[in-house]
Amino acid sequence: MTEQQLSLLENAVHTIPDYPCEGVMFRDVTGILDDAEAFALAIKLMADEFKDKGFTKVVGTEARGFLFGAPLALALGVGFVPVRKPGKLPRETIAEHYQLEYGQDTLEIHQDALTADDNVLIIDDLLATGGTIDATTKLIRRLGAKVSAAGFVISLPDLGGEARLKDLDLSVLSLLQYEGE
Amino acid sequence: MTEQQLSLLENAVHTIPDYPCEGVMFRDVTGILDDAEAFALAIKLMADEFKDKGFTKVVGTEARGFLFGAPLALALGVGFVPVRKPGKLPRETIAEHYQLEYGQDTLEIHQDALTADDNVLIIDDLLATGGTIDATTKLIRRLGAKVSAAGFVISLPDLGGEARLKDLDLSVLSLLQYEGE
Repeated sequence: MTEQQLSLLENAVHTIPDYPCEGVMFRDVTGILDDAEAFALAIKLMADEFKDKGFTKVVGTEARGFLFGAPLALALGVGFVPVRKPGKLPRETIAEHYQLEYGQDTLEIHQDALTADDNVLIIDDLLATGGTIDATTKLIRRLGAKVSAAGFVISLPDLGGEARLKDLDLSVLSLLQYEGE
Repeated sequence: MTEQQLSLLENAVHTIPDYPCEGVMFRDVTGILDDAEAFALAIKLMADEFKDKGFTKVVGTEARGFLFGAPLALALGVGFVPVRKPGKLPRETIAEHYQLEYGQDTLEIHQDALTADDNVLIIDDLLATGGTIDATTKLIRRLGAKVSAAGFVISLPDLGGEARLKDLDLSVLSLLQYEGE
């Protein structure tokens, strides 16, 4: 990525102090979507990284993963598979529970969405603790498919997600990294 | 659209009888996303329809509107603006309440997402009763922007959405129509 490309992306990210709670610097990607040039660049940079690597599907997690995952699937010429909150997918699903800071949450995938022939790329907007990506990886592997890479617009390495995904044997690409927060 | 293109799209739509409740034939667009050729065709057909018409933004409603709206924005070379459930957008928002069959729901948009200079295209996966699109149209107009068109992969005209959107002065494009249900 050139300096100019990096500036274009960085300038499009809104930073909201103390959201959703005090002490958190929230990185808001809606400014990238909103800026046609920044959005096209983000998808192009990810497509350049992930093309010609044998991926057969992109998986994205509800809801912000849809915003970058679906365009990237199109750019790579592969199908897109959504991972969703419970009760949102109409055909037979499998579910994975995961821990939140308080309580737990559940994600689902259609049981027939992937097979052992699939080589999956996971895409999301932002990598923080990696909890949803961990659950998404387990869903993909329970369907017998391979998954070895995940791509993000933003990562916050201090929150542990990058290390957690490496423990799951995923390589991680992020266009922007914010450390020390 | 050619006969062959129509077949490709129709064959990719899964129909689930009696979901989410008895008597409903649920049209599931995940099969279009999942099929790289069908997904690319759906976006191309919508882009052909809407290009060179002066649209400055695409607006899509959480969550399935993101799946088609974000790629279409890229294809048209304009920005994408999400309309989301309450509490999901981090900056200052305005909200619109709308009626569901039982109870009500709320949608929000960032207050600075659109201006009087914007000419908006609304994109969603499926048009049924039109309740969420009605609320989305009101949010866009409250920000002073123009909106005169909405595009869908599927519409179910018998459920009244097409008539409702015409009453809101929106022209409606849908790639597939299912009547008599």
